[in-house]
Amino acid sequence: MLPLEFINQLSELLPADRIYTDPVECYTYAYDNSRKIFPPEAVVFPLTTEEVVAIVSLCNTNKIPLTPRGRGTGTAGGSLPEKGGIALSLERMVRIIRVDPANRVVVAEPGVLNQEIQNAVKPYGFFWPPDPSSAAFSTIGGNLATSAGGPHAVKYGTTRDHVLGLKGVTGAGEVIKTGCYTTKGVVGYDLTRLLIGSEGTLAVITEATLKLTPLPEKQGGLVAYYCDAISCAAAIVAIMGIPRGPSALEFLDAGSLSLIRARFPDLLPTNCQAMLMIEVDGSQNEISETINGILSVCRNSGLLQAEQVINSESLWKARKALSPLLRDIAPKKINEDVVVPVNTLPQFLDELTQLATQYRIVNVNFGHAGNGNIHVNLLIDPDDIDENYRAERCLNEIFDLVIRLNGTLSGEHGIGSEKRAYIPKEIDSTTLTLMKRIKQLFDPNDILNPGKLFP
Amino acid sequence: MLPLEFINQLSELLPADRIYTDPVECYTYAYDNSRKIFPPEAVVFPLTTEEVVAIVSLCNTNKIPLTPRGRGTGTAGGSLPEKGGIALSLERMVRIIRVDPANRVVVAEPGVLNQEIQNAVKPYGFFWPPDPSSAAFSTIGGNLATSAGGPHAVKYGTTRDHVLGLKGVTGAGEVIKTGCYTTKGVVGYDLTRLLIGSEGTLAVITEATLKLTPLPEKQGGLVAYYCDAISCAAAIVAIMGIPRGPSALEFLDAGSLSLIRARFPDLLPTNCQAMLMIEVDGSQNEISETINGILSVCRNSGLLQAEQVINSESLWKARKALSPLLRDIAPKKINEDVVVPVNTLPQFLDELTQLATQYRIVNVNFGHAGNGNIHVNLLIDPDDIDENYRAERCLNEIFDLVIRLNGTLSGEHGIGSEKRAYIPKEIDSTTLTLMKRIKQLFDPNDILNPGKLFP
Ligand SMILES: Cc1cc2nc3c(=O)[nH]c(=O)nc-3n(C[C@H](O)[C@H](O)[C@H](O)COP(=O)(O)OP(=O)(O)OC[C@H]3O[C@@H](n4cnc5c(N)ncnc54)[C@H](O)[C@@H]3O)c2cc1C
Ligand SMILES: Cc1cc2nc3c(=O)[nH]c(=O)nc-3n(C[C@H](O)[C@H](O)[C@H](O)COP(=O)(O)OP(=O)(O)OC[C@H]3O[C@@H](n4cnc5c(N)ncnc54)[C@H](O)[C@@H]3O)c2cc1C
Repeated sequence: MLPLEFINQLSELLPADRIYTDPVECYTYAYDNSRKIFPPEAVVFPLTTEEVVAIVSLCNTNKIPLTPRGRGTGTAGGSLPEKGGIALSLERMVRIIRVDPANRVVVAEPGVLNQEIQNAVKPYGFFWPPDPSSAAFSTIGGNLATSAGGPHAVKYGTTRDHVLGLKGVTGAGEVIKTGCYTTKGVVGYDLTRLLIGSEGTLAVITEATLKLTPLPEKQGGLVAYYCDAISCAAAIVAIMGIPRGPSALEFLDAGSLSLIRARFPDLLPTNCQAMLMIEVDGSQNEISETINGILSVCRNSGLLQAEQVINSESLWKARKALSPLLRDIAPKKINEDVVVPVNTLPQFLDELTQLATQYRIVNVNFGHAGNGNIHVNLLIDPDDIDENYRAERCLNEIFDLVIRLNGTLSGEHGIGSEKRAYIPKEIDSTTLTLMKRIKQLFDPNDILNPGKLFP
Repeated sequence: MLPLEFINQLSELLPADRIYTDPVECYTYAYDNSRKIFPPEAVVFPLTTEEVVAIVSLCNTNKIPLTPRGRGTGTAGGSLPEKGGIALSLERMVRIIRVDPANRVVVAEPGVLNQEIQNAVKPYGFFWPPDPSSAAFSTIGGNLATSAGGPHAVKYGTTRDHVLGLKGVTGAGEVIKTGCYTTKGVVGYDLTRLLIGSEGTLAVITEATLKLTPLPEKQGGLVAYYCDAISCAAAIVAIMGIPRGPSALEFLDAGSLSLIRARFPDLLPTNCQAMLMIEVDGSQNEISETINGILSVCRNSGLLQAEQVINSESLWKARKALSPLLRDIAPKKINEDVVVPVNTLPQFLDELTQLATQYRIVNVNFGHAGNGNIHVNLLIDPDDIDENYRAERCLNEIFDLVIRLNGTLSGEHGIGSEKRAYIPKEIDSTTLTLMKRIKQLFDPNDILNPGKLFP
């Protein structure tokens, strides 16, 4: 329980409508997409960097945990106040401070939704490339804190590639300004990217200077159906081997396809066991050249059919239907987002199937294959204790496989609380210790999102 | 002077041909492109990460300064052992460990020259985008430590955009591994980019996993001549405003052009006072589309002539001739690489001329205008004390102007010893203190390149 004295001091910093302490109100800030629940003891809604400084400083003095929160769409438990204390909701810091098309820059507060950024810059012919599927619901603060990315990362990269500078408040309550306003700049250490992906453990991001990219003129699409996952994976390797690549390259395995078939019986060829959805962008000429290039390498003995898609909306139809379908069939899923080097995808998918068979776990895989980033889903009945146990052991072996193939445990979701136990598989203890000491430097009393990201 | 005991211990770590202590031999490691001279007391040439660990540990125990060095082409004094001690030359760690075209990755030791990387990956249809003009002479270790960039940064970004992971040895002698082998990855803090641009003050980079980019099919070029700098700068803003931009956009001012005229009398139109060299790349179609787009916006009332260049070698002829010409006419030049937001270039160039006039300094400007990155050269006679004094004051005002326009003091050269006095103009004291504390964390005894980068 928060000390009354502390609550009183908080009330001096913010008006009543920007502090929740009623447990019912607090409860709506208790969850994210990890399905864990940790209610905060209070929720605060700052409007300015100065207010964030005041709140952080108060928590720092009183050693009260403070967990930054965008819109709670994270899947790793990152925004959950596991150790109690305050949820610092940035959702009311929603000003787009400056749209500067001449310099291809937008400056915004952290609570602005990704989609709102896109809407603000589209009239000038630009977009901000990070494209999590949650774009309409997640904040740029959350995107920055997790270095979010989506299907277009294969061409455009992820959040960390599209930020020029940040303003943040460290756990010590100090305001730092990182980076600069221009596309080149090498003055001092790169604190911008140190904050990006730090999951709210180093500083609260209160302003971001984002780098914009010109919208592609047009988009084109292709679907390719394969008789098995291995030949499909071989096609992914071939596609990523040609110079002029796709702007998105999404893979769906047999498990994903059977879910889709159950909902849309006529969408897919009968004997298809794996599928690629390929998007290309550019001028009409570029699109034709790129599609021809991809078509010529994606043909192998396992290809059933490859066809151009005229309407790119329909390209994404199957993919978009997937996530809710997964929820429908299995109330609990372990949803991972591992990454392996692209040319190990055939081996990875093969061994993954073996592991799922061995542990008798229903396994559905799909994802951003162009980056080697696969969403591995283990579908389980939460009430079946044995199945839960088998799934945990299976997951552990999947992570070992990923590391053995020189991959990484998370391509976009981050560590949060969900994956922290596995971090030592990937990061050696010397490097991890150094990271912890950086955390201490930014946040000496360990108040910012304590316990997250580290094992 | 190094203690004899220390030299003896060093000799136990490395064979005699990999330790220089003779002052004559050491003297060849005393300088870089900053024209300052600081001879090391010994030069060592490790071949492996383990040897680097041993050397760093020995220096750490004995608190002997250790300055990492690639090929000493830096222009900011970064590789000079200002405080004596050891020069750690990485020039013999020259193995390309792995070329992995399927994953678009090359793994290499730090002493490999940038050009050698390009040569190794070109047969597979790739290049590594960082393109300092010193590519044939500078190491990837130096490129990483300065986050080097060149003319193609306007399309492809700089070093920090093209690195997946690093191995390094901290000032405490600990080996850290940063990043991963895949293009997506969000596990732990981004130490990769913390090391990139840290100028050898945090860790010695001993291995780098670099991300490759497909070579463009073709290149095309344009030159555009203007009657004054202001209309030329306006054209830069217009060109950077269109979606499909150049792969290089280099600007030369009147001072640069008169140097070139002195050497190549017939190269330029008589009344031309500013010039753009524009490169575009892609397929033949893309090149045509892009050139047409650029041609249509670069025309303004100050345009004298714009023409396509068939041979892109000839495009760079004038630009390449410049640096040596500058040396010829003025034995001392203050050579800066400031960056301003692209749309402030007209104002910047205008005020720059006013300052040069006011302080009676010969001033020649050229550079990577597409990024707003201008090489500002103040040409001075080293023996003219008053001129030197005026130049220093002029430079100070130029930096103030850059900051006022929301620019940055260095786009590619870094801080080293040359610019450290000016850092507080750009980075506030809170942020700077945090950077210093990060330095302490990595290098508790301040042995790695001590005194550099900080004021
Ligand atoms: C349907 C759905 C689809 C998704 N698809 C993708 C996808 O394609 N790619 C992808 O990368 N992710 C995806 N996600 C995950 C999630 O949307 C992203 O991680 C997103 O970036 C989180 O944003 P948020 O505003 O909801 O942040 P939250 O979930 O509130 O917080 C996420 C983390 O960021 C921290 N944080 C938030 N704001 C700040 C701030 N201002 N300063 C410091 N730290 C802060 C929090 O402490 C927490 O650690 C998806 C989620 C859902 C529900
Ligand atoms: C003719 C010429 C043209 C140039 N053009 C450009 C240009 O277009 N763009 C540009 O960005 N720069 C340019 N430069 C500057 C210079 O070439 C770059 O900064 C280059 O990256 C330095 O590489 P180097 O191997 O010579 O490093 P050095 O000069 O030896 O060292 C530079 C810095 O890096 C550190 N360092 C070197 N290796 C390591 C390592 N392995 N681990 C840790 N720290 C290390 C050093 O301590 C020092 O601080 C130019 C220089 C010249 C002489």
